[in-house]
Amino acid sequence: MKYYAKPLGKLINELSKLPGIGGKTAQRLAFHILSLTESEAESLATAIMDAKRNMKYCSVCGNLTDTDPCSICSDSTRDNTVICVVESPRDVFAMERIREYKGQYHVLHGAISPMDGIGPDDINLRQLILRLQENADISEVILATNPNIEGEATAMYIARLLKPTGIKVSRIAHGIPVGGDLEYADEITLLKAVEGRREL
Amino acid sequence: MKYYAKPLGKLINELSKLPGIGGKTAQRLAFHILSLTESEAESLATAIMDAKRNMKYCSVCGNLTDTDPCSICSDSTRDNTVICVVESPRDVFAMERIREYKGQYHVLHGAISPMDGIGPDDINLRQLILRLQENADISEVILATNPNIEGEATAMYIARLLKPTGIKVSRIAHGIPVGGDLEYADEITLLKAVEGRREL
Repeated sequence: MKYYAKPLGKLINELSKLPGIGGKTAQRLAFHILSLTESEAESLATAIMDAKRNMKYCSVCGNLTDTDPCSICSDSTRDNTVICVVESPRDVFAMERIREYKGQYHVLHGAISPMDGIGPDDINLRQLILRLQENADISEVILATNPNIEGEATAMYIARLLKPTGIKVSRIAHGIPVGGDLEYADEITLLKAVEGRREL
Repeated sequence: MKYYAKPLGKLINELSKLPGIGGKTAQRLAFHILSLTESEAESLATAIMDAKRNMKYCSVCGNLTDTDPCSICSDSTRDNTVICVVESPRDVFAMERIREYKGQYHVLHGAISPMDGIGPDDINLRQLILRLQENADISEVILATNPNIEGEATAMYIARLLKPTGIKVSRIAHGIPVGGDLEYADEITLLKAVEGRREL
């Protein structure tokens, strides 16, 4: 667009690189940013750079953190006998939102996907094995990878890998989401829900 | 959320202040920003500050610009006899997208709205009158304020104000949008479309 002044055009261009932000939204955001006070705009820009510079991966669990080990790994009030294995740091935050799980985490940073050439060595799995070897008090590993082909394959792989250790390995339940409608559930979810039925 | 590390929490908080960006989207954007290279993140942060620092309002037309007068006002190939009056700089870009209009603009930065206590003196109207007085060659003013109550009131006000000057004042047409469906048009739009019918 010829008549966007350069700084505005550059900002719109940068914003539209963000996921889910198209040209129109980028323009709306850019105009909003121009309407901010200089200090407001600065705190946004600073937050971006601060987050980028100070956030790293925890050397123990692989979660995003600004301290190493992360606040979860170093929290002595948490249950160190359970490790929940997830694919990404976002899943850690999702788990934390339920406010019930008080164990530790392990972030794989991906899932096994032979189609994409991602094998067991390409995800943060070796570190999990090391943790299990070093901490004899870990009694359960909860596999909370995503319920898709890659996540299932990864869960299966880890379950088989840990079988000889005797550590209890569990998988989060699949089924009808709470508030969901049976009518609209896909066949596989419904099948899993029936398979995973519990006696009342 | 307790377990967001501070820099991440701050970034999510800053992002969720943007219009149309809720908590979940802010989180998704924040994780995306963390996945960028440092130079990519920096160019986003720099674009924000550059735009905020270098963009200002053109002293002639009130449009957003990094030079004064703006590139449209100082473009000698454009038609200086027509001024299109719009409410905001975004409307200028919308007009530019049609690639047909080659006249000048005037940005009001708002619309008359007695309900919100915004009168003729609170928008960039005095400057328009000055422009018309100083440039005797302006022959038409196109009123392209929004087709809502405030925009219509503003258009009416300006039309009445310019009546004595003898300058031609026009209003953009209301009607069914191209590609739209008669069935779904509201009554007022359809009424305007019928009223504004043209002989073929």
